[in-house]
Amino acid sequence: MTSPASAARRTVRVDLGERSYDILIGPGLIASAGAEIGARLKGCRIAVVTDEHVAPLYLEPFLSSLADAGIEAVSQVLPAGEKTKSFEHLMTVCDAVLGARIERGDAVVALGGGVIGDLTGFAAGIVRRGSRFIQVPTSLLAQVDSSVGGKTGINSRHGKNLIGVFHQPDLVLADTGVLDTLSPREFRAGYAEVAKYGLIDKPDFFAWLEKNWRDIFSGGEARIEAIATSCQAKADVVAADERETGLRALLNLGHTFGHALEAATEYDSARLVHGEGVAIGMVLAHQFSARMNLASPDDARRVEAHLKDVGLPVSMDAIPGGLPPVEVLMEAIAQDKKVKSGRLTFILTRGIGQSFVADDVPASEVLSFLKEKHPR
Amino acid sequence: MTSPASAARRTVRVDLGERSYDILIGPGLIASAGAEIGARLKGCRIAVVTDEHVAPLYLEPFLSSLADAGIEAVSQVLPAGEKTKSFEHLMTVCDAVLGARIERGDAVVALGGGVIGDLTGFAAGIVRRGSRFIQVPTSLLAQVDSSVGGKTGINSRHGKNLIGVFHQPDLVLADTGVLDTLSPREFRAGYAEVAKYGLIDKPDFFAWLEKNWRDIFSGGEARIEAIATSCQAKADVVAADERETGLRALLNLGHTFGHALEAATEYDSARLVHGEGVAIGMVLAHQFSARMNLASPDDARRVEAHLKDVGLPVSMDAIPGGLPPVEVLMEAIAQDKKVKSGRLTFILTRGIGQSFVADDVPASEVLSFLKEKHPR
Repeated sequence: MTSPASAARRTVRVDLGERSYDILIGPGLIASAGAEIGARLKGCRIAVVTDEHVAPLYLEPFLSSLADAGIEAVSQVLPAGEKTKSFEHLMTVCDAVLGARIERGDAVVALGGGVIGDLTGFAAGIVRRGSRFIQVPTSLLAQVDSSVGGKTGINSRHGKNLIGVFHQPDLVLADTGVLDTLSPREFRAGYAEVAKYGLIDKPDFFAWLEKNWRDIFSGGEARIEAIATSCQAKADVVAADERETGLRALLNLGHTFGHALEAATEYDSARLVHGEGVAIGMVLAHQFSARMNLASPDDARRVEAHLKDVGLPVSMDAIPGGLPPVEVLMEAIAQDKKVKSGRLTFILTRGIGQSFVADDVPASEVLSFLKEKHPR
Repeated sequence: MTSPASAARRTVRVDLGERSYDILIGPGLIASAGAEIGARLKGCRIAVVTDEHVAPLYLEPFLSSLADAGIEAVSQVLPAGEKTKSFEHLMTVCDAVLGARIERGDAVVALGGGVIGDLTGFAAGIVRRGSRFIQVPTSLLAQVDSSVGGKTGINSRHGKNLIGVFHQPDLVLADTGVLDTLSPREFRAGYAEVAKYGLIDKPDFFAWLEKNWRDIFSGGEARIEAIATSCQAKADVVAADERETGLRALLNLGHTFGHALEAATEYDSARLVHGEGVAIGMVLAHQFSARMNLASPDDARRVEAHLKDVGLPVSMDAIPGGLPPVEVLMEAIAQDKKVKSGRLTFILTRGIGQSFVADDVPASEVLSFLKEKHPR
């Protein structure tokens, strides 16, 4: 049956040789998950991992879809929130998957946002030294970023995502219909990563976003287009540099500052969520690039204006509850994993869509810059 | 300086493309570890993980050797024993490595036996999604088996080694001098894996072992030869099938029965250590193969006789403290990770050095066989 839903569907291929996989993007994919999975992974059993926010909305429809396709499944519901990316919950998921006798040919499914995807992907990557893995991202952030590319992990008290593996999914089902249930704040946070792809190396896409963001937010045609373009952008980078030895680092635009801000707010989502940290981080990266005479201050102002238009925070002042001293932020930046032999590595830019990896940024310059920008 | 020690050294190359590495085998390698590491991994810092048994013997000489070569190091000492292969200790090691600010270009070192190697390798594989890793195996078992090939992991309440990653070391330093401090029981346990390589596909090596085992046990020339042959055998299999999709499964000869016996004795090393489980398991695999009319009972008797000669246990009767009912052993066998879609996979044999993967063994035959062999 060809429905308007399937007509609107897009497929992005992540080209990684024998580990290549498809990202299906469009409305209604949770309802047809059983058919899509059954067609690709014959005879597999499924362990679904989700969280307390997503379960009431989508677990039952997802399991029904599997049952209709004759696929056996068990499920595990975890608390929602960044704190779930811990050793404790990793252990819970591994134990549940092994207890369900999921074997190497079966599959572990992440039904949720980035937290569930990162944690579940890590568990899939280590159970029996690697089980099959399917992402069913239910947030915009997860659809355009974390569900693509195989980075998985949990947080450590030393920093975010410091423990994990590269484990590629076998399939990603990005149901764009679920985005209507996101809060505006959560949608905006995901949008920061969409804008990032424009800022990395797609100036035309950024200009298109400046014109079309209202349609993306309201669920029009532009939404699927924006998600597909984002997934394709990420897929291209991942295919070129799966293990982040070079080019892939560009995806961290805004993330070094962003992670430091997340650490400084103790991953308290009431104060700052990841995408908001990235939004502020991208503005800071453009401002810092201007300060280093690499880019025009006009570009930094343009980035700031667009992100502000969509309702994202664009400065450290905007974070409620205050921030620790600049020295604490610097500490977090230095511990961030994008550090090589003590020098600071940042993604800087020469203008909109002209980002590059700067691997010898003087810490003193960063410190002075942060002191200027830091709210008192 | 060429010493008699370095003259006796052997090098085995594990050929895995850009992840290839050397295994150095011979006396005095802990004393020269700093020079060997410094020559290969320029400018790296080191986090050493070891256990309470190994630390008093070799941690200080190892750290001194690093210091002499100008290599900075921190160390973490864990409890000794199989129970250390747990999520709790994995977390401890990850935390220690991150706390020491070990970066991707630095290295994590496992100084110890198989438990320390498996746990530390797993930690190295997940810290920053993969850090460099050096094995300094101090038991015969670790030198000939677990330190080679990149399998890492911890145990779960559902079974042994069910959680882990493939993470190849960058270098293995097998100091054969340390084997003199092993208890005879521990040396014998490692010897079971040496004999395994003969039984898999090297009938001449097995015959050579039957003649030369006394020299291997007493520390003569044959010892280094036996270790080098074993490492080369494992390196060849790993190079051909790194991820255990086929051939590599042969290395599990004796291990499905062995793991079930280890589980049945609750990994209590006072009753059964891994190599003893493998010894009994290899005898059972040969007896079961004879029962299935695949091999001559004479071969099973020859395997039993040789392993008995060296002092290894060769039947379930030999395990002190009794075993649970056969049904419990079957349960452990079915949960063992070498199971595909419910059928039992075993390594069986057509004779000495003629092992093969049998992936459709009827559970009923295994059950009847175990009932005959099980002590009452």
